[in-house]
This record gives sequence, structure tokens and C-alpha cells, in this order.
Amino acid sequence: MPALPNLNIVPFISVENMMDLVLNVGVENFLTELSAYIEADFRRWEAFDKVARIASHSREGVIELMPASDGVLYGFKYVNGHPKNTRTGRQTVTAFGVLSDVDSGYPLLISEMTILTALRTAATSAVAAKYLAPESADCMAIIGNGAQSEFQAIAFKALLGISKLRLYDIDPNATERCARNLAGMGFDVTRCRSSQEAVEGAAIITTATADKQNATILTDNMVGPGVHINAVGGDCPGKTELHRDILSRSDIFVEYPPQTRIEGEIQQMPVDHPIIELWQVIAGHSPGRTGTSQVTLFDSVGFATEDFSALRYVRDKLSGTSLYENLDLLADPDEPRDLFGMLLRRKLVTSAASLKPAKA
Amino acid sequence: MPALPNLNIVPFISVENMMDLVLNVGVENFLTELSAYIEADFRRWEAFDKVARIASHSREGVIELMPASDGVLYGFKYVNGHPKNTRTGRQTVTAFGVLSDVDSGYPLLISEMTILTALRTAATSAVAAKYLAPESADCMAIIGNGAQSEFQAIAFKALLGISKLRLYDIDPNATERCARNLAGMGFDVTRCRSSQEAVEGAAIITTATADKQNATILTDNMVGPGVHINAVGGDCPGKTELHRDILSRSDIFVEYPPQTRIEGEIQQMPVDHPIIELWQVIAGHSPGRTGTSQVTLFDSVGFATEDFSALRYVRDKLSGTSLYENLDLLADPDEPRDLFGMLLRRKLVTSAASLKPAKA
Repeated sequence: MPALPNLNIVPFISVENMMDLVLNVGVENFLTELSAYIEADFRRWEAFDKVARIASHSREGVIELMPASDGVLYGFKYVNGHPKNTRTGRQTVTAFGVLSDVDSGYPLLISEMTILTALRTAATSAVAAKYLAPESADCMAIIGNGAQSEFQAIAFKALLGISKLRLYDIDPNATERCARNLAGMGFDVTRCRSSQEAVEGAAIITTATADKQNATILTDNMVGPGVHINAVGGDCPGKTELHRDILSRSDIFVEYPPQTRIEGEIQQMPVDHPIIELWQVIAGHSPGRTGTSQVTLFDSVGFATEDFSALRYVRDKLSGTSLYENLDLLADPDEPRDLFGMLLRRKLVTSAASLKPAKA
Repeated sequence: MPALPNLNIVPFISVENMMDLVLNVGVENFLTELSAYIEADFRRWEAFDKVARIASHSREGVIELMPASDGVLYGFKYVNGHPKNTRTGRQTVTAFGVLSDVDSGYPLLISEMTILTALRTAATSAVAAKYLAPESADCMAIIGNGAQSEFQAIAFKALLGISKLRLYDIDPNATERCARNLAGMGFDVTRCRSSQEAVEGAAIITTATADKQNATILTDNMVGPGVHINAVGGDCPGKTELHRDILSRSDIFVEYPPQTRIEGEIQQMPVDHPIIELWQVIAGHSPGRTGTSQVTLFDSVGFATEDFSALRYVRDKLSGTSLYENLDLLADPDEPRDLFGMLLRRKLVTSAASLKPAKA
């Protein structure tokens, strides 16, 4: 990105420009590079000012703000979760975010984040699995074949070499669409008729269902020894996917405990149920997988630092491209204390314009 | 505003469009109408989902998120406070905000809020003074003649009939600029050489200084009986303007106690120091001013519901105008669960475009 011509301007990345950025970089390459940013930021976890996301709950869903700062940059994401939105043609989850300069408080970038959130969620899952999944895993079950499913598949192919997918959704059309979208990308895809069938022979089980309820997508007997569970769908109070017996015999890895205790699968467990912080594993302070029969569970809910990493990555990739618009977002009076004077001078400009004779 | 043509589009109000909206409505009229929205929302205070703003502090300043919801609409503001910004030609405070539909979580409006915050802060002060200032007050001192000063003057003229202003700033240029900007608007302006001089004969004292420190803009002997103090500048931890002796003999009115206890003038007092909630006065549950010698103090810090009111007002005023742009902010796949498919189809579109022969 060039030096900003004016202090009032903030670069804006629309949905269309984000799609073009992702396609220019390549989806798989984008996920690989984004994963590296996410991993690097988890490794310097202690440098971040962190807070559990601020949720406003309503009958139909939730609107959340997710801020994080490393003392140099500040990022936040606005994100909603409204499971019934698909009935009116809307997305269950939409998002946008802002990256700012901590020293001045000025925004550096405003970006669509619906697509970016899908990418960072999948990238984070793959980063966790790098440390937690059994060695040489090549087969993953994906239960819930909605908007997140293809991104998960490609991220796990990129980072772990997953080549076999076993797909299941209560809606067979969703499975069909996911399989069709992934055609020609080097996956061996099996469409399954039940969760039970999907998990057969899978070293990694990804759950990514959308209904806002306490569901039991996986029961204990479906989880064999040595499996890694990537639990993506259970991510707010009252929304879980796993039977608690699975939690009891798993080693559970989480992003930010104060948030996951409320939102994750572990909301089903006592508040002192043992968990391991993912950053500790990535930073080398805790072991990840320790044995071949151990069941590992990444209780993913999505944390603000991951969005921060994603905005940071997008800002770096944007450099030298024209994939953004310039938004006149910030007031920039000639003299900083003279905000009212700026308004007065605007009046003179517009009055002068209205006095211009119309073109002959 | 017309029905939105596409689900991906969110109307955006730039700084320029906000200025034109304010000028079309008229600054004084805008403040009057905005005050009515703020007052109405304070009156239905209990309908709101409220939270103290979420602050990220750094050495140079603070970045804050301020959400509020009435169950139908949700609003939030991003705002920074960086006193040293003026040295690099930047604003101390910049802001933008979003208004959303609670039922779908979809943003309805994204708006600049640097100008709008200046207006809503002044409007809130005037609403409070309507209930707290001595009857037939016509003279106001303004100590601190920066970006907020003219807005305060006009709001108090509009709602209380203030016609005499006594201005003081440690920087005489600021006073001069404020006086010049207000010329021809019907004020009798006195430029003062000290705070002491400014408060002489003033029924209302407005303090709106910007330095981030515990300052003593007013000492106890400067505050006569019956005065209303509108303390605007002290609004974050470590930033106050009044000597605590003034607080001890004032009746103190606040917006949202959990936030004001930390950020307001009352951060100097014990945590159980008596305060009165402004909404209780506006809703008729508590008396405002009760006597002619009572010193009233509005310990203003700015609360999220005021930004919510401002966004709600702007959305209503925007109707029928073209003072906004359309931002491609939200992903809108043909089939809501098919986010990845949208990306694939974009690839086909851009590939097709690149295959087109160049114009002969």
C-alpha cells in the first residue's frame, strides 16, 4: 500500500476485493501463509492485550466485538451469529474488522471479514492439528458440511497433507455441494449417510455444525483411541456438539480459557476441568500429543488474536496491489483542534458550488 | 433510504456526507433534534443492554469500543483518545460507528463519528443541563476552547437559551478561533485571561480541556452557590479537571455508574460516593435541581447509548437523501451456506474477464 495521501482516508477491502486477493494468492497458499501468521502470534501470546469477546445476545442470535492488541497494532472484529439467517438468504455469520495504529489510534484498514473469518477459523484448526493430530494422519471426517467445511478441508490438506475426506451432513445437499466444490483439488471424497459412517477410519474428526443448541453430533463410542477431534461448531453458550463423556477422556486444548469456559464444549464441564492452552503447546511450554492412544480435542471457539493475525496478514499481502478502495472515514481539519471550523468551511464550499451557473 | 438492492451492501456515511447532512439540517437544528433522540433513549434506559466501554490503553492513549442495544437495534462506536495526536496534525479523538439489526445481526449503517461524537457530546450536556442548570441561566463559561467548545455553545443556546459566553483556554489562539467560529451566531462573547475571570457571573461552567492528566481546572473557591458544572473533559482514568472539594459539595449526576466510577471526576472519590443517575432524573424518578444554592455537576464521560441515539437519528435523517455511499461489506452468496462456492464462481468471472480480447 502506498503512503496514505490524506489523514482522512482509510483503505477498505470489499468482499469482491477480498475474493480477488484470495484467488490471486491461491486459496491453499493463502491458508498456508495465514496459518504462519496465526502460529507466530500464538507463539508471542503474552505480548497481547486480551479480553473475552463482548457479546450482545438476543433471541435469534448474537452480535460480538472481538478486540486484541500487541501494543503496536490494535485489531477488532464485528461478527454476528444468527443460525436462522439462512431462511432469509442471509449468512449465519457475517463479519468485518479494523486494524489500527496503537500510537495514534487511527484505523489503518477496514476489511470485510466474512470470508476472512472462514479462512482464519480453518487455518487455526490446522495449526492446532499440526501439534495435536496423530502422525501421518491422511483421513479426516467432516461432520457438518456448511460454509466452513471446504476451508477446513483445504487447510488440513495444506498443513497436514490430508487427502481423504469423509463427509456427512443431515442435509445431503450440503454434502453434495461440499464434494462438488472440492472436486479436482486432489481429495478422495466419501459421502457418508451418518456420523457413525463418517468417522470410520478417520484420524481426525472435524465437527462444524451450525444449529444453536446443545446437540450430540458425536457420542463416546464413535471416538476411537488416538483420534484428534477438531470441534469447530460449538462456540457459544447453549451450543455444543460433543457428548460430555468424550470430554472426560480427552486432553482438551483451548484458545483463551476465560472465553472457552463460557462458549466452548467445556461449558458442559465443571469450571475447573483441566485444559491446556494452545499457545503453551505452540510456544513449546506444554507437550501436544504425547501418545498414540491419546484422544486430543481442540475446543475451538475463535479468538480475537486470530482475527488480528488475519488482518495483519491481509495488510501485508495488500502491499503493491490495488485491491482496496479509499474511504473518507476520518475528519481531517486543516488545524486539528478546529473541527467546527472544518464544518464552516464545508458550508462555504457547498454554497459556492450551488451558486455555479448550470452548464449551458 | 430506499430498500437495499442487495444483501451485501451497507450504506456508508463519509465525513463529507456527514458535514453536508449537518449543514442541510442546520447545526443548531441538528443539535436540537439529536438532543430529543438522546433524551428519549435516556428515558427508556432500562430497555438497553449496557456495558462499560471496552478500553485498550497504551502509553499514548486509548482505543475504545462502545456497544449498546435496545433489543431491536444494536450500535457500537470505535473511538480513540490520543492527546498528543495534534502534534502530527491528527485529531485527539476520531470515531466511527455501526448500527445493526438485532434480529439478523446485519449492519444497517456504517458512519463516520468524529463529527457526530462532537455533536452528541454537546447534545448530551445540554440535555443534562435542561434538568440541572439554574432557571433562566443565560451565561456560560467554557474553559478549554478546543474541538468541543463551539458545539457546546450552540447546543446550550438551542436547548437553554444561553447567549453569553465567557471563553478561556491556556492557548489564546484556541479562544480566538472559538470566538471567530461563533461570530454572527447571536452570542455575546467575552475572551478571558484566566479560568477565574471566565467563571465570573456564569450560571453554567463547562470544562472541556484535553490534556491527559489529573489537572485542576476549577478550584473550590471558583464555584459559587447555584452554579451548574458541565464537566466534559475528565473522561478516562488519570484524567480529571475538578478539585475534589468541588465534588464534595456538589450533587453529582452521571451517565452509567460502572463506567463513570472509573473514568469520571468521581474516580477521585471513594467508590461509594453518592451519585444520581441522569436517566432517573429524565424519567422523573429523581429530582434534578432542587434549590437555588445547590451546586449541580454533570460528570460527563460519554456513554454508548448516546452514540446509539446519534446513529439512530442519523439513519432517520438520511431517509430520502443521497448522502451515503454503498459499501460491498457483506458476503452474499447465491446460496447462504455456499461461501466457498461464491469464491469459486468469482474465479470463473475474473478468468473469463482476463480471456476477453483487448479492444481493437
